[in-house]
Amino acid sequence: MGTPAPHPPQDPAVEERVRKSFLRQKVMKTIGAQMLTVAPGVVEIELPYHPGLTQQDGFIHAGIITTIADSACGYAAYSLMSADAAVLTVEFKVNLLAPAKGERFVARGRVLRSGRTLTVCQADVVAYPSEQTVATMLGTIMAMRPRKA
Amino acid sequence: MGTPAPHPPQDPAVEERVRKSFLRQKVMKTIGAQMLTVAPGVVEIELPYHPGLTQQDGFIHAGIITTIADSACGYAAYSLMSADAAVLTVEFKVNLLAPAKGERFVARGRVLRSGRTLTVCQADVVAYPSEQTVATMLGTIMAMRPRKA
Amino acid sequence: MGTPAPHPPQDPAVEERVRKSFLRQKVMKTIGAQMLTVAPGVVEIELPYHPGLTQQDGFIHAGIITTIADSACGYAAYSLMSADAAVLTVEFKVNLLAPAKGERFVARGRVLRSGRTLTVCQADVVAYPSEQTVATMLGTIMAMRPRKA
Amino acid sequence: MGTPAPHPPQDPAVEERVRKSFLRQKVMKTIGAQMLTVAPGVVEIELPYHPGLTQQDGFIHAGIITTIADSACGYAAYSLMSADAAVLTVEFKVNLLAPAKGERFVARGRVLRSGRTLTVCQADVVAYPSEQTVATMLGTIMAMRPRKA
Repeated sequence: MGTPAPHPPQDPAVEERVRKSFLRQKVMKTIGAQMLTVAPGVVEIELPYHPGLTQQDGFIHAGIITTIADSACGYAAYSLMSADAAVLTVEFKVNLLAPAKGERFVARGRVLRSGRTLTVCQADVVAYPSEQTVATMLGTIMAMRPRKA
Repeated sequence: MGTPAPHPPQDPAVEERVRKSFLRQKVMKTIGAQMLTVAPGVVEIELPYHPGLTQQDGFIHAGIITTIADSACGYAAYSLMSADAAVLTVEFKVNLLAPAKGERFVARGRVLRSGRTLTVCQADVVAYPSEQTVATMLGTIMAMRPRKA
Repeated sequence: MGTPAPHPPQDPAVEERVRKSFLRQKVMKTIGAQMLTVAPGVVEIELPYHPGLTQQDGFIHAGIITTIADSACGYAAYSLMSADAAVLTVEFKVNLLAPAKGERFVARGRVLRSGRTLTVCQADVVAYPSEQTVATMLGTIMAMRPRKA
Repeated sequence: MGTPAPHPPQDPAVEERVRKSFLRQKVMKTIGAQMLTVAPGVVEIELPYHPGLTQQDGFIHAGIITTIADSACGYAAYSLMSADAAVLTVEFKVNLLAPAKGERFVARGRVLRSGRTLTVCQADVVAYPSEQTVATMLGTIMAMRPRKA
């Protein structure tokens, strides 16, 4: 997206808010994923290889790759939202660029466009040690806010 | 898609081939999913609710819903391929239509268009007992065949 | 999507509102498209073949097929919105299922899920006289409403 | 995608081949688009604003924006293919990031991953003089080759 505008966080406690929400995603513990970087508009999630996450050829299943990419996008969006907002994935599209083989995988989500209601994000998932990009996601995230009385 | 053409299987042992491949997807055992229907061009996969699969609000994570939808699409495509083909997901798009809450979820994949190299599939994921459709996937599957000598 | 819920229109003048908005889409006159059916949650747009709309092989360009599919989705969504809403396409995904050859093409958009802010739609584009489905679109439409003072 | 690998062209006459094919896309003359840059794995197409291309609010219709983005992706992919290949769009996803208002629009397609059969591309469409990105496309392109006898 060329030179994206800088994303100043709207909330000084943003990182803590993001990390607390991530810890409530029990699926992340189940698959063994953890959050790395949290910065305004950018979030990284790491997943070590585990045979219990594989498809028929021994690669990580595309749905598991999607799981970390979706959370990386969602929390990248969430990091720019006001504190009263909850985050909801509207939709995403994933292109699988290479078989997900490696020792660990890092999904890096970043905000392409931040709006009051909708945020558009992209995530790349990179395998290590090969540093090959195995998937890219383009998705839409919604901010849900309580209705005013 | 109006009145789709009927999908006669190309291989009499198709159901066995599909079910054997599914059993090699170790992630399915990890998340507790099992294959229900296997018919030419149609495959159903069921996932019971488990708290270890949830996101921050207690619903099944979109990536896990995607996991069963992707395999339902992939095996629906695979059920129409010749016996020498291996199956590979090229890409998919998922719209999340409602929060994934329920006791169990059934992903039903079906072939929209079957080609020699590429197959286009759609999957709906329905929650029970509400019978609400919680997600729909539109994706592209590729048949990989050994190069001839 | 199984048996979708019926979509009663929220506004008795809905068809007139949809058709008036369509007539303001100057691109439709440029490409020669016209609106056929308008029903609650369903809109059809027809495009006759014209050599000025083709790609390098003489088929209708995928972007032009997308143009009628997007408007069919957008107006299908619009037909269920309250009268104060404006309609905006958030995103769409299109699978091209066959080359767009024929004498005319009909895009049929229908609502899969209607929400206050977001509506998810699908459109199929069918070529005539072959009756072959040449494309399918899955997209998200947003209702924009004036902020209350 | 971090630092993508360089894309050396496979064919010395690649630029001429790309530009000749583009000139056969009659829709480009109809909408007034022209090809700017052609480099290995990167193609730019420019569209001046014209009122005959607008939707109901006076912005360029999303389908027309898609038309130039799709051709930019397709020709970016084509620029890396061997001379015997024909190019076919399999599918694309477009996020509309801002209303398409401006004096002219440039779609810049680039190859994310180049394979023998499938190529994954991304295109951004930027409005001028605002330099705002109005849309981003993520798509899959197929190389069609004559079967060997």
